[in-house]
Amino acid sequence: MEPPAMRQRPFLAPSTQHEVTAVLFDTFGTVVDWRRGIAQAVADFAARHRLGLAPEAFADAWRAEYDPSMARVRSGERPYVPLSQLHRENLERTLARHGLRLADFDAAEIATLNRAWERLPAWPDSVPGLAALKRQYVIGPLSNGDVALLVHLAKFAGLPWDLIIGSDLTHAYKPQPEAYLRAAAILRLPPGEVMLVAAHNADLQGAREAGLATGFVARSREHGPAQTTDLAAASDWDVVADDLVALAARLGAP
Amino acid sequence: MEPPAMRQRPFLAPSTQHEVTAVLFDTFGTVVDWRRGIAQAVADFAARHRLGLAPEAFADAWRAEYDPSMARVRSGERPYVPLSQLHRENLERTLARHGLRLADFDAAEIATLNRAWERLPAWPDSVPGLAALKRQYVIGPLSNGDVALLVHLAKFAGLPWDLIIGSDLTHAYKPQPEAYLRAAAILRLPPGEVMLVAAHNADLQGAREAGLATGFVARSREHGPAQTTDLAAASDWDVVADDLVALAARLGAP
Repeated sequence: MEPPAMRQRPFLAPSTQHEVTAVLFDTFGTVVDWRRGIAQAVADFAARHRLGLAPEAFADAWRAEYDPSMARVRSGERPYVPLSQLHRENLERTLARHGLRLADFDAAEIATLNRAWERLPAWPDSVPGLAALKRQYVIGPLSNGDVALLVHLAKFAGLPWDLIIGSDLTHAYKPQPEAYLRAAAILRLPPGEVMLVAAHNADLQGAREAGLATGFVARSREHGPAQTTDLAAASDWDVVADDLVALAARLGAP
Repeated sequence: MEPPAMRQRPFLAPSTQHEVTAVLFDTFGTVVDWRRGIAQAVADFAARHRLGLAPEAFADAWRAEYDPSMARVRSGERPYVPLSQLHRENLERTLARHGLRLADFDAAEIATLNRAWERLPAWPDSVPGLAALKRQYVIGPLSNGDVALLVHLAKFAGLPWDLIIGSDLTHAYKPQPEAYLRAAAILRLPPGEVMLVAAHNADLQGAREAGLATGFVARSREHGPAQTTDLAAASDWDVVADDLVALAARLGAP
Protein backbone atom coordinates (compact mmCIF):
# COMPACT_ATOMS: atom_id res chain seq x y z
CA MET A 1 0.00 0.00 0.00
CA GLU A 2 0.97 3.62 0.01
CA PRO A 3 3.64 4.62 2.51
CA PRO A 4 2.03 5.78 5.76
CA ALA A 5 2.68 9.43 4.96
CA MET A 6 0.34 9.21 1.95
CA ARG A 7 -2.57 7.86 3.97
CA GLN A 8 -4.90 10.50 5.26
CA ARG A 9 -6.60 9.08 8.31
CA PRO A 10 -5.63 5.50 9.16
CA PHE A 11 -8.38 3.83 11.11
CA LEU A 12 -7.46 2.63 14.59
CA ALA A 13 -9.56 -0.43 15.39
CA PRO A 14 -10.80 -0.22 19.00
CA SER A 15 -10.79 -3.99 19.48
CA THR A 16 -7.25 -4.63 18.22
CA GLN A 17 -5.61 -1.27 18.96
CA HIS A 18 -3.93 -1.55 15.56
CA GLU A 19 -4.24 0.76 12.59
CA VAL A 20 -5.98 -1.11 9.82
CA THR A 21 -3.88 -1.79 6.72
CA ALA A 22 -6.05 -4.26 4.81
CA VAL A 23 -9.83 -4.50 4.58
CA LEU A 24 -11.04 -7.93 3.48
CA PHE A 25 -14.59 -8.87 2.62
CA ASP A 26 -16.93 -11.71 2.97
CA THR A 27 -18.24 -11.80 -0.58
CA PHE A 28 -21.43 -13.83 -1.09
CA GLY A 29 -24.17 -11.75 0.50
CA THR A 30 -21.89 -8.96 1.70
CA VAL A 31 -20.57 -7.72 -1.66
CA VAL A 32 -22.75 -9.50 -4.22
CA ASP A 33 -26.46 -10.38 -4.27
CA TRP A 34 -26.21 -14.14 -4.78
CA ARG A 35 -29.95 -14.76 -4.49
CA ARG A 36 -30.88 -12.51 -7.39
CA GLY A 37 -28.06 -13.84 -9.57
CA ILE A 38 -28.76 -17.50 -8.87
CA ALA A 39 -32.51 -17.07 -9.29
CA GLN A 40 -31.94 -15.43 -12.68
CA ALA A 41 -29.69 -18.28 -13.82
CA VAL A 42 -32.23 -20.83 -12.60
CA ALA A 43 -35.04 -18.99 -14.40
CA ASP A 44 -33.02 -19.05 -17.63
CA PHE A 45 -32.28 -22.76 -17.17
CA ALA A 46 -35.92 -23.53 -16.42
CA ALA A 47 -37.11 -21.61 -19.46
CA ARG A 48 -34.70 -23.42 -21.79
CA HIS A 49 -35.86 -26.79 -20.50
CA ARG A 50 -39.55 -25.88 -19.95
CA LEU A 51 -39.30 -26.75 -16.26
CA GLY A 52 -41.74 -25.47 -13.68
CA LEU A 53 -39.11 -24.34 -11.16
CA ALA A 54 -39.63 -21.44 -8.75
CA PRO A 55 -36.30 -19.59 -9.22
CA GLU A 56 -36.01 -17.96 -5.78
CA ALA A 57 -37.06 -21.12 -3.96
CA PHE A 58 -34.57 -23.16 -5.98
CA ALA A 59 -31.83 -20.61 -5.19
CA ASP A 60 -32.69 -20.79 -1.49
CA ALA A 61 -32.67 -24.58 -1.55
CA TRP A 62 -29.30 -24.68 -3.32
CA ARG A 63 -27.84 -22.18 -0.88
CA ALA A 64 -29.28 -24.11 2.09
CA GLU A 65 -26.86 -26.93 1.25
CA TYR A 66 -23.89 -24.56 1.48
CA ASP A 67 -23.19 -24.57 5.19
CA PRO A 68 -23.82 -28.29 5.80
CA SER A 69 -21.49 -29.16 2.92
CA MET A 70 -18.70 -27.00 4.37
CA ALA A 71 -19.34 -28.37 7.85
CA ARG A 72 -18.13 -31.79 6.71
CA VAL A 73 -14.84 -30.23 5.64
CA ARG A 74 -14.49 -28.15 8.79
CA SER A 75 -15.03 -31.20 10.97
CA GLY A 76 -12.41 -33.20 9.10
CA GLU A 77 -14.99 -35.70 7.90
CA ARG A 78 -13.71 -35.07 4.38
CA PRO A 79 -10.56 -33.31 3.16
CA TYR A 80 -10.69 -29.78 1.78
CA VAL A 81 -12.36 -29.47 -1.60
CA PRO A 82 -12.97 -26.12 -3.32
CA LEU A 83 -16.33 -24.43 -2.93
CA SER A 84 -17.00 -24.76 -6.66
CA GLN A 85 -17.00 -28.52 -6.17
CA LEU A 86 -19.33 -28.27 -3.18
CA HIS A 87 -21.65 -26.04 -5.22
CA ARG A 88 -21.68 -28.69 -7.92
CA GLU A 89 -22.49 -31.51 -5.50
CA ASN A 90 -25.15 -29.34 -3.87
CA LEU A 91 -26.67 -28.53 -7.27
CA GLU A 92 -27.04 -32.21 -8.08
CA ARG A 93 -28.70 -32.81 -4.71
CA THR A 94 -31.04 -29.84 -5.21
CA LEU A 95 -32.01 -30.95 -8.69
CA ALA A 96 -32.79 -34.41 -7.35
CA ARG A 97 -35.00 -32.94 -4.62
CA HIS A 98 -36.92 -31.17 -7.37
CA GLY A 99 -37.43 -34.49 -9.15
CA LEU A 100 -34.84 -33.74 -11.85
CA ARG A 101 -32.25 -36.29 -12.95
CA LEU A 102 -28.77 -35.18 -13.95
CA ALA A 103 -28.81 -37.64 -16.86
CA ASP A 104 -31.65 -35.72 -18.50
CA PHE A 105 -29.43 -32.68 -19.11
CA ASP A 106 -26.41 -31.92 -21.23
CA ALA A 107 -23.26 -31.91 -19.07
CA ALA A 108 -22.27 -28.46 -20.38
CA GLU A 109 -25.66 -27.07 -19.34
CA ILE A 110 -25.16 -28.24 -15.78
CA ALA A 111 -21.61 -26.88 -15.72
CA THR A 112 -22.88 -23.52 -16.93
CA LEU A 113 -25.61 -23.47 -14.29
CA ASN A 114 -23.02 -24.21 -11.60
CA ARG A 115 -20.97 -21.28 -12.86
CA ALA A 116 -23.86 -18.98 -12.01
CA TRP A 117 -21.89 -18.36 -8.79
CA GLU A 118 -19.34 -16.55 -11.00
CA ARG A 119 -21.98 -14.22 -12.45
CA LEU A 120 -23.65 -12.46 -9.54
CA PRO A 121 -24.54 -8.76 -9.41
CA ALA A 122 -22.84 -6.46 -6.91
CA TRP A 123 -25.06 -4.59 -4.48
CA PRO A 124 -25.36 -1.00 -5.81
CA ASP A 125 -22.99 0.46 -3.20
CA SER A 126 -20.31 -2.24 -3.47
CA VAL A 127 -18.21 -1.03 -6.40
CA PRO A 128 -18.11 2.67 -5.36
CA GLY A 129 -17.40 1.67 -1.74
CA LEU A 130 -14.58 -0.68 -2.72
CA ALA A 131 -13.09 1.88 -5.12
CA ALA A 132 -12.96 4.44 -2.30
CA LEU A 133 -11.41 1.99 0.15
CA LYS A 134 -8.85 0.86 -2.42
CA ARG A 135 -7.29 4.32 -2.43
CA GLN A 136 -6.20 3.90 1.19
CA TYR A 137 -6.28 0.22 2.02
CA VAL A 138 -5.35 -3.13 0.57
CA ILE A 139 -8.69 -4.70 -0.34
CA GLY A 140 -9.66 -8.23 -1.26
CA PRO A 141 -12.16 -10.97 -0.63
CA LEU A 142 -11.71 -13.24 2.37
CA SER A 143 -14.25 -15.70 1.15
CA ASN A 144 -15.06 -19.36 1.34
CA GLY A 145 -15.02 -19.28 -2.46
CA ASP A 146 -11.96 -20.52 -4.30
CA VAL A 147 -9.63 -18.22 -6.21
CA ALA A 148 -10.84 -19.19 -9.70
CA LEU A 149 -14.47 -18.63 -8.74
CA LEU A 150 -13.67 -15.31 -7.09
CA VAL A 151 -11.59 -14.05 -10.03
CA HIS A 152 -14.38 -14.73 -12.49
CA LEU A 153 -16.92 -13.17 -10.14
CA ALA A 154 -14.79 -10.05 -9.70
CA LYS A 155 -14.49 -9.57 -13.46
CA PHE A 156 -18.22 -10.09 -13.97
CA ALA A 157 -19.28 -7.72 -11.19
CA GLY A 158 -16.45 -5.18 -11.61
CA LEU A 159 -15.02 -5.64 -8.11
CA PRO A 160 -11.67 -3.79 -7.99
CA TRP A 161 -9.80 -6.13 -5.64
CA ASP A 162 -6.08 -5.71 -5.03
CA LEU A 163 -5.70 -9.45 -4.55
CA ILE A 164 -7.88 -12.54 -4.22
CA ILE A 165 -7.80 -14.67 -1.09
CA GLY A 166 -9.88 -17.80 -1.50
CA SER A 167 -10.32 -20.83 0.70
CA ASP A 168 -8.06 -22.86 -1.60
CA LEU A 169 -5.16 -20.66 -0.45
CA THR A 170 -5.89 -21.15 3.24
CA HIS A 171 -7.38 -24.65 2.99
CA ALA A 172 -9.90 -23.62 5.62
CA TYR A 173 -13.53 -22.59 5.62
CA LYS A 174 -14.65 -19.67 7.77
CA PRO A 175 -15.26 -19.49 10.68
CA GLN A 176 -12.28 -21.81 11.18
CA PRO A 177 -9.57 -19.62 12.74
CA GLU A 178 -7.06 -20.70 10.08
CA ALA A 179 -9.17 -19.04 7.39
CA TYR A 180 -8.59 -15.64 9.00
CA LEU A 181 -5.08 -16.18 10.31
CA ARG A 182 -3.68 -17.51 7.05
CA ALA A 183 -5.19 -14.58 5.16
CA ALA A 184 -3.29 -12.19 7.43
CA ALA A 185 -0.17 -14.29 6.99
CA ILE A 186 -0.42 -14.10 3.19
CA LEU A 187 -0.45 -10.31 3.56
CA ARG A 188 2.38 -10.60 6.11
CA LEU A 189 0.33 -8.48 8.53
CA PRO A 190 -0.50 -8.92 12.20
CA PRO A 191 -4.16 -10.07 12.40
CA GLY A 192 -5.07 -6.84 14.17
CA GLU A 193 -4.14 -4.80 11.08
CA VAL A 194 -6.64 -6.74 8.99
CA MET A 195 -10.36 -5.95 9.09
CA LEU A 196 -13.00 -8.40 7.97
CA VAL A 197 -16.17 -6.78 6.68
CA ALA A 198 -19.24 -9.01 6.58
CA ALA A 199 -23.01 -8.95 6.70
CA HIS A 200 -22.94 -12.04 8.91
CA ASN A 201 -22.41 -11.78 12.66
CA ALA A 202 -21.10 -15.34 12.99
CA ASP A 203 -18.35 -14.64 10.45
CA LEU A 204 -17.33 -11.50 12.36
CA GLN A 205 -17.30 -13.45 15.61
CA GLY A 206 -14.84 -15.91 14.02
CA ALA A 207 -12.71 -13.04 12.77
CA ARG A 208 -12.70 -11.36 16.19
CA GLU A 209 -11.70 -14.58 17.93
CA ALA A 210 -8.80 -14.86 15.48
CA GLY A 211 -7.70 -11.33 16.39
CA LEU A 212 -8.90 -9.42 13.35
CA ALA A 213 -10.70 -6.09 13.35
CA THR A 214 -14.36 -6.28 12.31
CA GLY A 215 -16.85 -4.27 10.26
CA PHE A 216 -20.56 -4.98 9.81
CA VAL A 217 -22.91 -3.92 7.04
CA ALA A 218 -26.53 -5.08 7.10
CA ARG A 219 -27.80 -6.83 3.99
CA SER A 220 -31.36 -7.22 5.17
CA ARG A 221 -32.65 -8.66 1.91
CA GLU A 222 -29.83 -11.09 1.18
CA HIS A 223 -32.25 -13.94 1.82
CA GLY A 224 -35.26 -12.16 0.35
CA PRO A 225 -38.05 -10.06 1.84
CA ALA A 226 -38.75 -12.47 4.71
CA GLN A 227 -35.19 -12.46 6.11
CA THR A 228 -35.01 -12.77 9.88
CA THR A 229 -31.26 -13.19 10.51
CA ASP A 230 -28.37 -10.72 10.58
CA LEU A 231 -30.70 -7.74 10.38
CA ALA A 232 -28.43 -5.76 12.70
CA ALA A 233 -25.04 -5.89 14.37
CA ALA A 234 -25.11 -8.43 17.19
CA SER A 235 -21.98 -7.12 18.91
CA ASP A 236 -19.84 -4.03 19.23
CA TRP A 237 -17.95 -4.57 15.98
CA ASP A 238 -15.25 -2.00 15.28
CA VAL A 239 -17.35 -0.37 12.56
CA VAL A 240 -21.03 -0.68 11.74
CA ALA A 241 -22.26 1.03 8.58
CA ASP A 242 -25.33 1.01 6.38
CA ASP A 243 -23.43 0.05 3.24
CA LEU A 244 -19.93 -0.04 1.78
CA VAL A 245 -19.91 3.62 0.76
CA ALA A 246 -20.72 4.59 4.34
CA LEU A 247 -18.16 2.08 5.60
CA ALA A 248 -15.46 3.68 3.43
CA ALA A 249 -16.30 7.08 4.88
CA ARG A 250 -16.10 5.69 8.41
CA LEU A 251 -12.65 4.29 7.61
CA GLY A 252 -11.46 7.69 6.42
CA ALA A 253 -11.57 6.84 2.74
CA PRO A 254 -14.45 8.93 1.37
CA MET B 1 -13.77 -13.63 -16.88
CA GLU B 2 -16.39 -12.68 -19.40
CA PRO B 3 -18.30 -15.54 -20.96
CA PRO B 4 -16.73 -16.58 -24.28
CA ALA B 5 -19.44 -14.83 -26.30
CA MET B 6 -18.28 -11.46 -24.94
CA ARG B 7 -14.68 -11.98 -25.95
CA GLN B 8 -13.85 -10.54 -29.29
CA ARG B 9 -10.90 -12.45 -30.64
CA PRO B 10 -9.54 -15.13 -28.28
CA PHE B 11 -5.90 -15.76 -29.04
CA LEU B 12 -5.04 -19.31 -30.09
CA ALA B 13 -1.49 -20.04 -28.93
CA PRO B 14 0.38 -21.89 -31.67
CA SER B 15 2.53 -23.85 -29.24
CA THR B 16 -0.28 -25.13 -27.02
CA GLN B 17 -3.20 -25.11 -29.47
CA HIS B 18 -5.32 -23.66 -26.69
CA GLU B 19 -7.15 -20.37 -26.60
CA VAL B 20 -5.51 -18.20 -23.96
CA THR B 21 -7.69 -17.36 -20.94
CA ALA B 22 -5.14 -15.87 -18.53
CA VAL B 23 -2.06 -13.75 -19.26
CA LEU B 24 0.44 -13.76 -16.40
CA PHE B 25 3.54 -11.61 -16.17
CA ASP B 26 7.03 -11.81 -14.96
CA THR B 27 7.13 -8.57 -13.03
CA PHE B 28 10.63 -7.34 -12.10
CA GLY B 29 12.13 -6.12 -15.37
CA THR B 30 9.15 -7.04 -17.52
CA VAL B 31 6.50 -4.78 -15.96
CA VAL B 32 8.49 -2.51 -13.65
CA ASP B 33 11.89 -0.84 -13.98
CA TRP B 34 13.57 -2.21 -10.86
CA ARG B 35 16.96 -0.66 -11.62
CA ARG B 36 15.68 2.91 -11.71
CA GLY B 37 13.55 2.42 -8.60
CA ILE B 38 16.27 0.75 -6.55
CA ALA B 39 18.90 3.25 -7.62
CA GLN B 40 16.63 6.10 -6.54
CA ALA B 41 16.05 4.51 -3.13
CA VAL B 42 19.80 3.92 -2.72
CA ALA B 43 20.52 7.52 -3.71
CA ASP B 44 18.05 8.75 -1.09
CA PHE B 45 19.58 6.45 1.53
CA ALA B 46 23.11 7.56 0.62
CA ALA B 47 22.16 11.22 0.81
CA ARG B 48 20.55 10.83 4.24
CA HIS B 49 23.65 9.09 5.59
CA ARG B 50 26.23 11.06 3.57
CA LEU B 51 27.57 7.89 1.97
CA GLY B 52 29.53 7.87 -1.25
CA LEU B 53 27.54 5.10 -2.94
CA ALA B 54 27.05 4.86 -6.70
CA PRO B 55 23.30 4.19 -6.85
CA GLU B 56 23.14 2.22 -10.11
CA ALA B 57 26.18 0.13 -9.25
CA PHE B 58 24.73 -0.63 -5.82
CA ALA B 59 21.41 -1.60 -7.42
CA ASP B 60 23.20 -3.90 -9.84
CA ALA B 61 25.23 -5.47 -7.03
CA TRP B 62 22.11 -6.04 -4.94
CA ARG B 63 20.28 -7.56 -7.90
CA ALA B 64 23.27 -9.75 -8.75
CA GLU B 65 22.64 -11.64 -5.51
CA TYR B 66 19.07 -12.41 -6.57
CA ASP B 67 19.54 -15.48 -8.69
CA PRO B 68 22.21 -17.15 -6.55
CA SER B 69 20.04 -16.70 -3.46
CA MET B 70 17.04 -18.35 -5.17
CA ALA B 71 19.26 -21.10 -6.54
CA ARG B 72 19.84 -22.38 -3.01
CA VAL B 73 16.07 -22.72 -2.56
CA ARG B 74 15.55 -24.31 -5.96
CA SER B 75 18.24 -26.88 -5.27
CA GLY B 76 16.69 -27.80 -1.93
CA GLU B 77 19.78 -26.59 -0.05
CA ARG B 78 17.44 -24.48 2.05
CA PRO B 79 13.64 -24.53 2.42
CA TYR B 80 11.46 -21.98 0.68
CA VAL B 81 11.70 -18.48 2.10
CA PRO B 82 9.90 -15.48 0.57
CA LEU B 83 11.77 -13.24 -1.82
CA SER B 84 11.44 -10.30 0.58
CA GLN B 85 13.60 -12.25 3.02
CA LEU B 86 16.16 -13.06 0.32
CA HIS B 87 16.21 -9.38 -0.66
CA ARG B 88 16.95 -8.51 2.93
CA GLU B 89 19.78 -11.02 3.28
CA ASN B 90 21.16 -9.86 -0.07
CA LEU B 91 20.99 -6.24 1.07
CA GLU B 92 23.03 -7.01 4.17
CA ARG B 93 25.60 -8.80 2.03
CA THR B 94 25.73 -5.93 -0.47
CA LEU B 95 26.12 -3.33 2.28
CA ALA B 96 28.98 -5.36 3.73
CA ARG B 97 30.70 -5.52 0.34
CA HIS B 98 30.51 -1.73 0.24
CA GLY B 99 32.20 -1.59 3.64
CA LEU B 100 29.01 -0.70 5.51
CA ARG B 101 28.00 -2.35 8.77
CA LEU B 102 24.36 -3.04 9.53
CA ALA B 103 24.89 -1.95 13.13
CA ASP B 104 25.66 1.58 11.97
CA PHE B 105 22.11 2.13 10.78
CA ASP B 106 18.71 2.35 12.36
CA ALA B 107 16.80 -0.91 11.87
CA ALA B 108 13.80 0.95 10.45
CA GLU B 109 16.04 2.62 7.86
CA ILE B 110 17.27 -0.75 6.61
CA ALA B 111 13.73 -2.13 6.55
CA THR B 112 12.60 0.87 4.50
CA LEU B 113 15.48 0.44 2.08
CA ASN B 114 14.56 -3.22 1.63
CA ARG B 115 11.01 -2.18 0.84
CA ALA B 116 12.31 -0.25 -2.15
CA TRP B 117 11.30 -3.40 -4.09
CA GLU B 118 7.69 -2.42 -3.34
CA ARG B 119 8.14 1.06 -4.83
CA LEU B 120 9.32 0.59 -8.39
CA PRO B 121 8.07 2.55 -11.42
CA ALA B 122 6.18 0.79 -14.19
CA TRP B 123 7.61 1.01 -17.70
CA PRO B 124 5.55 3.65 -19.56
CA ASP B 125 3.59 1.10 -21.61
CA SER B 126 2.84 -1.28 -18.73
CA VAL B 127 -0.31 0.22 -17.20
CA PRO B 128 -2.08 0.97 -20.51
CA GLY B 129 -1.10 -2.45 -21.87
CA LEU B 130 -2.36 -4.26 -18.78
CA ALA B 131 -5.59 -2.24 -18.71
CA ALA B 132 -6.31 -3.27 -22.31
CA LEU B 133 -5.52 -6.92 -21.65
CA LYS B 134 -7.67 -6.92 -18.51
CA ARG B 135 -10.78 -6.29 -20.59
CA GLN B 136 -10.43 -9.69 -22.26
CA TYR B 137 -8.15 -11.81 -20.12
CA VAL B 138 -7.48 -12.67 -16.51
CA ILE B 139 -4.22 -10.88 -15.71
CA GLY B 140 -1.80 -11.19 -12.83
CA PRO B 141 1.85 -11.45 -11.92
CA LEU B 142 3.54 -14.84 -12.03
CA SER B 143 6.55 -13.62 -10.17
CA ASN B 144 9.23 -14.87 -7.85
CA GLY B 145 8.11 -12.10 -5.52
CA ASP B 146 5.82 -12.93 -2.62
CA VAL B 147 2.20 -11.82 -2.46
CA ALA B 148 2.70 -9.05 0.11
CA LEU B 149 5.57 -7.55 -1.90
CA LEU B 150 3.59 -7.78 -5.14
CA VAL B 151 0.44 -6.22 -3.63
CA HIS B 152 2.35 -3.23 -2.36
CA LEU B 153 4.18 -2.90 -5.66
CA ALA B 154 0.92 -3.03 -7.62
CA LYS B 155 -0.62 -0.27 -5.52
CA PHE B 156 2.49 1.89 -5.86
CA ALA B 157 2.82 1.45 -9.62
CA GLY B 158 -0.91 1.30 -10.42
CA LEU B 159 -0.83 -2.21 -11.89
CA PRO B 160 -4.46 -3.30 -12.40
CA TRP B 161 -4.04 -7.02 -11.63
CA ASP B 162 -7.05 -9.28 -11.31
CA LEU B 163 -5.19 -11.43 -8.79
CA ILE B 164 -1.72 -11.81 -7.35
CA ILE B 165 0.24 -15.04 -7.75
CA GLY B 166 3.47 -14.95 -5.78
CA SER B 167 6.06 -17.59 -5.07
CA ASP B 168 4.72 -18.01 -1.54
CA LEU B 169 1.54 -19.47 -3.05
CA THR B 170 3.41 -21.96 -5.22
CA HIS B 171 6.42 -22.47 -2.93
CA ALA B 172 8.59 -22.57 -6.01
CA TYR B 173 10.93 -20.18 -7.76
CA LYS B 174 10.84 -19.90 -11.54
CA PRO B 175 12.02 -21.62 -13.68
CA GLN B 176 11.05 -24.56 -11.47
CA PRO B 177 8.14 -26.24 -13.29
CA GLU B 178 5.99 -26.12 -10.17
CA ALA B 179 6.02 -22.32 -10.26
CA TYR B 180 4.17 -22.36 -13.60
CA LEU B 181 2.03 -25.44 -13.06
CA ARG B 182 0.73 -24.39 -9.65
CA ALA B 183 -0.16 -20.95 -11.01
CA ALA B 184 -2.34 -22.61 -13.66
CA ALA B 185 -3.82 -24.89 -10.99
CA ILE B 186 -4.77 -21.88 -8.81
CA LEU B 187 -6.68 -20.54 -11.81
CA ARG B 188 -8.08 -24.04 -12.43
CA LEU B 189 -6.92 -23.79 -16.03
CA PRO B 190 -5.00 -26.21 -18.25
CA PRO B 191 -1.43 -24.87 -18.55
CA GLY B 192 -1.95 -24.30 -22.28
CA GLU B 193 -4.63 -21.68 -21.57
CA VAL B 194 -2.17 -19.63 -19.52
CA MET B 195 0.39 -17.37 -21.17
CA LEU B 196 3.51 -16.17 -19.41
CA VAL B 197 4.80 -12.83 -20.66
CA ALA B 198 8.42 -12.06 -19.82
CA ALA B 199 11.42 -10.07 -20.97
CA HIS B 200 13.63 -13.03 -20.09
CA ASN B 201 14.11 -15.92 -22.49
CA ALA B 202 15.07 -18.39 -19.75
CA ASP B 203 11.81 -17.73 -17.90
CA LEU B 204 9.84 -18.32 -21.10
CA GLN B 205 11.75 -21.53 -21.72
CA GLY B 206 10.70 -22.75 -18.28
CA ALA B 207 7.09 -21.78 -19.00
CA ARG B 208 7.13 -23.56 -22.34
CA GLU B 209 8.55 -26.71 -20.82
CA ALA B 210 5.71 -26.64 -18.29
CA GLY B 211 3.19 -26.40 -21.13
CA LEU B 212 2.28 -22.71 -20.94
CA ALA B 213 1.92 -20.33 -23.86
CA THR B 214 4.64 -17.69 -24.07
CA GLY B 215 4.97 -13.99 -24.93
CA PHE B 216 8.19 -11.97 -25.14
CA VAL B 217 8.71 -8.24 -24.81
CA ALA B 218 12.22 -6.83 -25.00
CA ARG B 219 13.33 -4.62 -22.13
CA SER B 220 16.70 -3.72 -23.55
CA ARG B 221 17.60 -1.24 -20.82
CA GLU B 222 16.47 -3.29 -17.82
CA HIS B 223 20.10 -3.66 -16.80
CA GLY B 224 21.11 -0.20 -18.00
CA PRO B 225 22.61 1.10 -21.22
CA ALA B 226 25.27 -1.61 -21.46
CA GLN B 227 22.85 -4.53 -21.39
CA THR B 228 23.91 -7.52 -23.50
CA THR B 229 21.33 -10.18 -22.55
CA ASP B 230 17.71 -10.76 -23.61
CA LEU B 231 17.89 -8.08 -26.28
CA ALA B 232 15.66 -10.15 -28.55
CA ALA B 233 13.52 -13.27 -28.58
CA ALA B 234 15.72 -16.36 -28.53
CA SER B 235 13.00 -18.74 -29.71
CA ASP B 236 9.69 -18.80 -31.55
CA TRP B 237 7.58 -17.69 -28.60
CA ASP B 238 3.85 -17.54 -29.28
CA VAL B 239 3.89 -13.76 -29.34
CA VAL B 240 6.77 -11.32 -29.61
CA ALA B 241 5.96 -7.62 -29.22
CA ASP B 242 7.81 -4.37 -28.66
CA ASP B 243 5.94 -3.53 -25.45
CA LEU B 244 2.80 -4.40 -23.51
CA VAL B 245 0.54 -2.11 -25.53
CA ALA B 246 1.65 -3.85 -28.71
CA LEU B 247 1.30 -7.21 -26.98
CA ALA B 248 -2.31 -6.43 -26.04
CA ALA B 249 -3.09 -5.58 -29.65
CA ARG B 250 -1.51 -8.84 -30.81
CA LEU B 251 -3.72 -10.72 -28.36
CA GLY B 252 -6.84 -9.07 -29.74
CA ALA B 253 -7.29 -6.67 -26.83
CA PRO B 254 -6.50 -3.24 -28.31
